[in-house]
Amino acid sequence: MAPDSTRRSEKSRRAIYAAALALVGEIGYPRTTIEGIAARAGVGKQTIYRWWSSKAEVLMEAFVDLGAQAAEAAGGDWAEEDGIPDTGDLEADLKTVLRATVDELNDPRYEAPARALAAEGVGNPAFAKEFVAMLLMPSLELYVRRLRAAQGAGQVRTEVDPYIARDLFVSPLAQRWLQGTGPLDHAYANKLVEYALYGIAPR
Amino acid sequence: MAPDSTRRSEKSRRAIYAAALALVGEIGYPRTTIEGIAARAGVGKQTIYRWWSSKAEVLMEAFVDLGAQAAEAAGGDWAEEDGIPDTGDLEADLKTVLRATVDELNDPRYEAPARALAAEGVGNPAFAKEFVAMLLMPSLELYVRRLRAAQGAGQVRTEVDPYIARDLFVSPLAQRWLQGTGPLDHAYANKLVEYALYGIAPR
Repeated sequence: MAPDSTRRSEKSRRAIYAAALALVGEIGYPRTTIEGIAARAGVGKQTIYRWWSSKAEVLMEAFVDLGAQAAEAAGGDWAEEDGIPDTGDLEADLKTVLRATVDELNDPRYEAPARALAAEGVGNPAFAKEFVAMLLMPSLELYVRRLRAAQGAGQVRTEVDPYIARDLFVSPLAQRWLQGTGPLDHAYANKLVEYALYGIAPR
Repeated sequence: MAPDSTRRSEKSRRAIYAAALALVGEIGYPRTTIEGIAARAGVGKQTIYRWWSSKAEVLMEAFVDLGAQAAEAAGGDWAEEDGIPDTGDLEADLKTVLRATVDELNDPRYEAPARALAAEGVGNPAFAKEFVAMLLMPSLELYVRRLRAAQGAGQVRTEVDPYIARDLFVSPLAQRWLQGTGPLDHAYANKLVEYALYGIAPR
C-alpha cells in the first residue's frame, strides 16, 4: 500500500473509532449502528464493512486503541501490552498497575462509552460473555501470570489459586467504578494491594 | 384495620412486588411503569399509588422483601436483618455470610430483576446513586460494623480501613455476578475470606 493511502486509512480508522465510542456513550449500545458510526465519522458504510464485520468488532478495537492512547498519554508509565511489570518487588509492581487502572477508569474519554458497554453487558449475558472475553479477560490474565511468577519467587504462597487472588486486586476497582460504592483513587489502590498481600488480620 | 382487610392488603402487596420484579426482569427498568405493574398484579393503579410514590420505591421494597423470602427459604441460616453474626470466629462468620450471598445471587428468582436493575444503574449514574444507597450500602455497612468489632477484639489490625477491607469480601462476588469473570460458588467464597484475612504472601 502506498504511504499516502496508508495515512488516509489510518485517519479514517481513528475517525471511526472516535465515532463509535462517542455514539455508544451518547445513545447506548443497542441504538448504535454501523450506519450511524459511518455518518458520524464521515465515511461510507462500505469503508467500515471493509475492515470490520460488526459494530461489536469496531467497538472492541476502539477500546483497545483507547487503552493504548491512554497509556501513551500517561507518559508511558505503564501500558497493558507490556503486561504487569516484574521488578522483583510484587507490591510495587501491583501498585503501579492498579494506580494506572484507576487513572484509566477515571479518564473522561473512557467513562461514557465504557459505562454504556458495561451496562449492556450486565443486562445481556450473551453480549457480556463476548465482551468480557475480548476486553476484560486478557487484562485479568496478566494478573494471573504475575501472581504465578511471584509464587515461583516465593512471594505468594504456592497453594493460593491465582484466579481467586487476582480478584482481590481487580474486583474492588471494578465495583467502585460500576456501582459507585466509594472513592476510586490512588490511595485506595495502594491500600488494596497491601491488604490483599499481607491480609487484614495481625501477622 | 380488620383482619380480613389486612390479609387482603398483604396479598395485593405481594402480588404487586411479584409483578414489579417480573416486569423489570422481562422488559427492563426504563419500560416498566406503575400502570404495567398494576395491570400485571390485577389491581388498580390507585392501589399502588396509595402505598408508593414511584416505581423505584415499589421495586426497592420488592427487593427487600425478596431478600427476606430468600433468607427464610434458606432455612433461616442467615438473614441480612440480623447483621453479620459475631460468634467470635471472624473467619467462620464471614464465610457463613459470603456463602449465603452466593446462594442469593444464584437464586433464579433474583437473577433477572436484579440484573435489569444493575444494568440500569451501571448506565445511569443518577439512578445508581439512589439504588446503591438504598439497596447495596446497608449490606456493605454490615461488613464495616463486623470488621470494626473484629478490630476491637484484636482480630483485624487497628490501622486497617474497614471501608477498604470490606471490598475484599464483597467486590469479588459482585464482579463475578455482574461480569461473569469466573464461577460463583461456596468454594470461591471460602477462599476469598481466607486470602483477605491472612493475605496471599507467606506469613
